[in-house]
Amino acid sequence: MRFDILADLTYDFPIRCETLLLIEAAQGPDQLVVSETLTIDPDAAVARLDDDGAGERRAVLDTAGRVRIQYAATVDVQREDGAYQDAGQVAIRDLPHDALAYLRPSRFCPSDRFERFAAREFGTLSGGARVAAMVDWIGRHLDYQPGVSNSGTTALDTFVDRAGVCRDFAHLAISICRASDIPARAVSAYAWRLEPPDLHAVAEVYLGDRWWLVDPTGKAPVSGLVRVAAGRDAADIAFMSVFGTARLVAQAFAIAEAGGVSKTA
Amino acid sequence: MRFDILADLTYDFPIRCETLLLIEAAQGPDQLVVSETLTIDPDAAVARLDDDGAGERRAVLDTAGRVRIQYAATVDVQREDGAYQDAGQVAIRDLPHDALAYLRPSRFCPSDRFERFAAREFGTLSGGARVAAMVDWIGRHLDYQPGVSNSGTTALDTFVDRAGVCRDFAHLAISICRASDIPARAVSAYAWRLEPPDLHAVAEVYLGDRWWLVDPTGKAPVSGLVRVAAGRDAADIAFMSVFGTARLVAQAFAIAEAGGVSKTA
Amino acid sequence: MRFDILADLTYDFPIRCETLLLIEAAQGPDQLVVSETLTIDPDAAVARLDDDGAGERRAVLDTAGRVRIQYAATVDVQREDGAYQDAGQVAIRDLPHDALAYLRPSRFCPSDRFERFAAREFGTLSGGARVAAMVDWIGRHLDYQPGVSNSGTTALDTFVDRAGVCRDFAHLAISICRASDIPARAVSAYAWRLEPPDLHAVAEVYLGDRWWLVDPTGKAPVSGLVRVAAGRDAADIAFMSVFGTARLVAQAFAIAEAGGVSKTA
Amino acid sequence: MRFDILADLTYDFPIRCETLLLIEAAQGPDQLVVSETLTIDPDAAVARLDDDGAGERRAVLDTAGRVRIQYAATVDVQREDGAYQDAGQVAIRDLPHDALAYLRPSRFCPSDRFERFAAREFGTLSGGARVAAMVDWIGRHLDYQPGVSNSGTTALDTFVDRAGVCRDFAHLAISICRASDIPARAVSAYAWRLEPPDLHAVAEVYLGDRWWLVDPTGKAPVSGLVRVAAGRDAADIAFMSVFGTARLVAQAFAIAEAGGVSKTA
Repeated sequence: MRFDILADLTYDFPIRCETLLLIEAAQGPDQLVVSETLTIDPDAAVARLDDDGAGERRAVLDTAGRVRIQYAATVDVQREDGAYQDAGQVAIRDLPHDALAYLRPSRFCPSDRFERFAAREFGTLSGGARVAAMVDWIGRHLDYQPGVSNSGTTALDTFVDRAGVCRDFAHLAISICRASDIPARAVSAYAWRLEPPDLHAVAEVYLGDRWWLVDPTGKAPVSGLVRVAAGRDAADIAFMSVFGTARLVAQAFAIAEAGGVSKTA
Repeated sequence: MRFDILADLTYDFPIRCETLLLIEAAQGPDQLVVSETLTIDPDAAVARLDDDGAGERRAVLDTAGRVRIQYAATVDVQREDGAYQDAGQVAIRDLPHDALAYLRPSRFCPSDRFERFAAREFGTLSGGARVAAMVDWIGRHLDYQPGVSNSGTTALDTFVDRAGVCRDFAHLAISICRASDIPARAVSAYAWRLEPPDLHAVAEVYLGDRWWLVDPTGKAPVSGLVRVAAGRDAADIAFMSVFGTARLVAQAFAIAEAGGVSKTA
Repeated sequence: MRFDILADLTYDFPIRCETLLLIEAAQGPDQLVVSETLTIDPDAAVARLDDDGAGERRAVLDTAGRVRIQYAATVDVQREDGAYQDAGQVAIRDLPHDALAYLRPSRFCPSDRFERFAAREFGTLSGGARVAAMVDWIGRHLDYQPGVSNSGTTALDTFVDRAGVCRDFAHLAISICRASDIPARAVSAYAWRLEPPDLHAVAEVYLGDRWWLVDPTGKAPVSGLVRVAAGRDAADIAFMSVFGTARLVAQAFAIAEAGGVSKTA
Repeated sequence: MRFDILADLTYDFPIRCETLLLIEAAQGPDQLVVSETLTIDPDAAVARLDDDGAGERRAVLDTAGRVRIQYAATVDVQREDGAYQDAGQVAIRDLPHDALAYLRPSRFCPSDRFERFAAREFGTLSGGARVAAMVDWIGRHLDYQPGVSNSGTTALDTFVDRAGVCRDFAHLAISICRASDIPARAVSAYAWRLEPPDLHAVAEVYLGDRWWLVDPTGKAPVSGLVRVAAGRDAADIAFMSVFGTARLVAQAFAIAEAGGVSKTA
């Protein structure tokens, strides 16, 4: 499928500072950026810190005052839903070396704490079947509810609180996967049919011979995700990291089947 | 300087499982592995998950029963002490792309929590002078004392507890550096003159145009460190990650000027 | 001094439930309630769970729909500022039995974590001089700033974050006192001259032969505090504990020298 | 039933300091202390900070060097097992005023965090039936296993870790009860038939018109408990609080049907 995506961000920077942007569509085996434009108003130099190996695109701005950042792209996505369920678990020695980091506990995914729970609850399953059972468990035991969590909430918090938003669902899924020796990471994405529209956070697991996107909230089809960045957890994939101070003025993310993006806030 | 290093680990694995080893000397601009041997007794297949880009060497074993792992190497180290103090802080846009991850909070280094403290206490300094001031502060405010911290202790805990061991000192230094927009990571190393001998944990900061090793405990000269692995914090550089269960039987790390390693426990 | 105090609370209770109110002026050696009225609109039964030993007054309502709660009182306060500084520390064996609980760590005051800090920083002082030094330290190292903390913030968080509001300042002061074997508790109070007007949270320490109020924020004189409730920390002195769901409609606390309360929001 | 109990503690105090002891059998409606002796060797003054209202007995020592503390008592206990299951939940307004504190979150029992879980899992039950269901849930989902928890472990940790010892089981039960508006507290007790013998930690809930002991570990009958102290959580009922430094030399707690205590370590 072909999608048009749009990010439209306006911020005030009271003092000149640098800002790292993670809003551009990634290049990868399952998505091709057909065309794109990144415009900064007023015009500003954009330094690139792209990670070509991962296909991840990062821009660094050095700005002051009110700045409007607009990113628009057309992206072809080739990805099917749910197919990971038949993929098998991979022995540690057969993993690509850069998957190892995604087995380890991270700031918001203290996976070592979930080992006993994972073994007690899902101990008879492995690979894709285990991931599917874990995602199902999360859907049955958590309420999707804004306001319960904040930017410091960990998977441990969410497991107790039994509620959260997309990043919390992703963090819990990632934690239980890692506790099951399945590499898992967080991915930010434009998400077709997500309501209300926003940059989405989902999980990605390594099974068989590749990474598979999984949305533990069940709110958006993975075939309609345009991926931006991957990381250990939300700390790595923030769409804007300000090395100074910024105040939000307006912000919107949009995605539509190619032919007509309708902008939303 | 040329060093002989030795790791000698004996563990019992009640059930067959995989183990990731991070005990081999890294290859890098400041150290050259002259010769080395890794022996597993009884003999076992060793899979390699080396990260050639980083020069980091990782072995994966698949073992059961009592296993003795011995690693011996001779390594030339070219590194001077303390020289980082004159190196300048680097703008975000001028960092190598793979340094970005070391600006972010991690499991044991929740650096976002230290921003106000870093600004209040060291706000007039930057770059190497700031790192030196922070390391000095840590030395004056923390007691080096085993038994206060455990494997779950974070830099936040250590900042309150005012005591810990090498990994805790490193975590706090790393956190305050990142809170100052200075990339910082954790490094495991064989440490000449460290008493008692053990695998050491130190910090590494990016200043000027390269990474610099820093030992916030002041217990070992960085010119005598043989580095093994680097990561966001201790979770990344554990010398042994067991994907199952293992029981320690005996364990020793040793380092000496080339010519005679005397084994120690 | 004589004060007029006023609490005026309007809440919606979507489902009938009980609510515990801690808004009435306490009776005690240093304050005398001259007159008071508590009115509930629409009228509702008020059960009393007063703690006569402590002089603490607690009302329990059982309400549904929109409810307005008004409490007005005239109170004589006899208390001087700062006099605690000459009072001595009390041996454990000489404490009243009900002061023991205030030596122990509590939810928001994990005082056991501050023992090394307290000893390193204030080890040469005891009693009132030590409390004064600790309050001074807090004033120099913390920013009074709303928005940094939330209802789950502990003294450990505040010690790292270096900012907070009155309850955070009180929690940190209480923690360091208990870590110094000085009984300390949290007190809610109407606070004359506090800007903006609100129910205030302060600390209270046991020295010499009695309890002394201390405001670590320095924002209100203790001679102008009309105390309501005391407890181990903020969890004990919430002015409203709803055993169900309530939504704030409007809320105001006011205090003035007797003769004219001017209502504020 | 009549029990003989014995505590035999030997500690070294390198520097003279005070110690609070909570090892003496409480007086109460369900247990009568028939005879008792407390001996300190070498002899030392014992100050009493008893809480006569609660029947709780507290001794304060001021000692230095090696000290042996022996407490022996004969106690009649009148208490039946399991009878709480038919007792009803009590409205807040009908609680005794001193039960209110046991509805609030405490250090190791952050009960506010369990409200959604309690409502989702046990929402159709109340009173004794709800407590019974919660205790049953704990038994099915937690492993009794030393070594997983430590002195800083909270009910939130235990809920995630799915394992712990008696104090952890008690903390989780207490937290879920409070999250269900049922007053709950921690009690230390000599526990007949507990293996291995030790001072036990259990929960106590307020239902109907009184407090009921409950052992969430199921390891000891409540009819064989000789209660010592009650509090919000383990922080309140530590059998020894040292206001200084002490080193354990030897320690034993024992209980037997009257006629013959056999000492155990």
